[in-house]
Amino acid sequence: MHVLVTGAAGMVGRKLVERLARDGSCAGRPISRLTLTDIVAPAKPSGFAGPVATRTEDFADAATAAELAGTRPDLIFHLAAIISGEAERDFDKGYRINLDGTRNLLEAIRQESAKNNSSHGAYVPRLVFSSSSGIFGAPYPAVIPDEFHATPLTSYGAQKAIGELLLADYSRRGLVDGVGIRFPSIVVRPGKPNASAGGFFSGIIREPLQGLEAMLPVGDDLVFTHASPRSAVGFLIHAAGLTREALGPRINLTMPGVFCSVGEQIAALRRVAGDKAVKLIRRAPDKAVTDIVSGWPTGFEAKRALALGFKAEQDFDEIIRVHIEDDLGGRLPN
Amino acid sequence: MHVLVTGAAGMVGRKLVERLARDGSCAGRPISRLTLTDIVAPAKPSGFAGPVATRTEDFADAATAAELAGTRPDLIFHLAAIISGEAERDFDKGYRINLDGTRNLLEAIRQESAKNNSSHGAYVPRLVFSSSSGIFGAPYPAVIPDEFHATPLTSYGAQKAIGELLLADYSRRGLVDGVGIRFPSIVVRPGKPNASAGGFFSGIIREPLQGLEAMLPVGDDLVFTHASPRSAVGFLIHAAGLTREALGPRINLTMPGVFCSVGEQIAALRRVAGDKAVKLIRRAPDKAVTDIVSGWPTGFEAKRALALGFKAEQDFDEIIRVHIEDDLGGRLPN
Repeated sequence: MHVLVTGAAGMVGRKLVERLARDGSCAGRPISRLTLTDIVAPAKPSGFAGPVATRTEDFADAATAAELAGTRPDLIFHLAAIISGEAERDFDKGYRINLDGTRNLLEAIRQESAKNNSSHGAYVPRLVFSSSSGIFGAPYPAVIPDEFHATPLTSYGAQKAIGELLLADYSRRGLVDGVGIRFPSIVVRPGKPNASAGGFFSGIIREPLQGLEAMLPVGDDLVFTHASPRSAVGFLIHAAGLTREALGPRINLTMPGVFCSVGEQIAALRRVAGDKAVKLIRRAPDKAVTDIVSGWPTGFEAKRALALGFKAEQDFDEIIRVHIEDDLGGRLPN
Repeated sequence: MHVLVTGAAGMVGRKLVERLARDGSCAGRPISRLTLTDIVAPAKPSGFAGPVATRTEDFADAATAAELAGTRPDLIFHLAAIISGEAERDFDKGYRINLDGTRNLLEAIRQESAKNNSSHGAYVPRLVFSSSSGIFGAPYPAVIPDEFHATPLTSYGAQKAIGELLLADYSRRGLVDGVGIRFPSIVVRPGKPNASAGGFFSGIIREPLQGLEAMLPVGDDLVFTHASPRSAVGFLIHAAGLTREALGPRINLTMPGVFCSVGEQIAALRRVAGDKAVKLIRRAPDKAVTDIVSGWPTGFEAKRALALGFKAEQDFDEIIRVHIEDDLGGRLPN
């Protein structure tokens, strides 16, 4: 099976590619070939026997999308996107990449399939699309049910919601075999702190585990839903293996996660890494950050995803342990 | 005030234009000028004092959209669309008109506003967008709440749902002042019977009122939500006058209607036009039609629309009387 990953150089993309290379198979089928594309050069995974094509390009370009579809990957993980803050700052770029890019990819698949002739049959790949809980917009109930409407309050959220609708319509028509995955907050993000408003959700765990101070701009009672990067990869891989019958027409799924307060995150950090780590969290209330984050959805029912077998961590302790295993070589620095 | 109507030659478009011409004002402001566009020549309304420009063109063309925005209408009723059946048969045409057309119009408004200079200020018109209950897809509860998700099962529904998301995002950014109106079933449609699956909802009233037979392909217990063409026009005009504050960020609204069964429609016909009319309804059960129509949403809570002052008829008797007044010259034939 030929697998294509767009956005392969991103945080989740890299971890997905490593996992695919390690497993050597996905959805019960051996992987014979990998194509990795991103706007910056994707890394070749180690330990994969088959050919790996890495491409550095703008996937959103219609000609590039046609070229990618022309290689007829059996399974596509479409992760490439302009993130929320940038899509908000740069209206044209966000729409070009997040809307036109996704549509061009779907259309390229349709056109490739239309070439159906003696040497090439119809082409209907499984396409796993990374969507986001950003499709929701306040006000919402504390726990959002699966049937809640999408009223995004960012251009990113609007673009993802439109991507979901396109994916569902192309799938309904049998032009692609799509699944959309709405990620919750993904923590603990490895690497350096970033400037995003929700960066502290990772920061208050990641920095103290490395003996560094972390700022906490919100109150301990703020609740949110998190899953680890490992779970994010697990969601994508599980989505790749779902049958059309199990999915039905509602192919865009809200993922589960650990619903907990910042205080519970900190209590988990104490259990895993002791008071020493917790003491490195410095409370620095920031009204601007609190206002932004308070507008985000807190919890998700995710009934359908759970019934379809999607799994996140059981508690925040587990999310921290996953970070230590996957990003810190399995043990606490000190 | 300069008012632009796209889709001005359609059934609702014609009635809207007649009403605007008759009222001479909309949303409390006098209408100084009308621009009417459609793919077939729109009729000039009688009794309007100001200039009326009628244009026969494909509004979805980006250059045409730019030209329309260049005339800087203060109020735009965007009704132009490829209808459900045609959008389903012709994938490319449906997406080109219903998605690209709406997006081109929004983008043309944004670009026109960006010309903001000494002679032209920023340009942010009120844009009333005709959406549809077709954004919903089965299964749904008998009465759909305002916060129910959009999972369309037609390309038309997907295109309208995408139009809503674009309209909301452009409005959130202050690029346009949008309101989306999700129409219920609009009956009694004047004119000849058509081949649409739901055509009988109008047919079983319209034909008997004219002494003609009408086929009823479904059972008497089938429930549905209807409003008259006059109410459809009323929804559009009421939407034009809503304040931004009253609307808030959720600008796409499900309209109210008369929730009743086919049996209640027939009972209303009996009250209005007697047994003679009812006897012209011939029951001809059709499983294919029943299957299609049974997949459509039956009722809508429409709480927000009602709170914002949108009004439909009180009962089906009133819908029939409106048809007689507006389309049959106020009296039953013979």
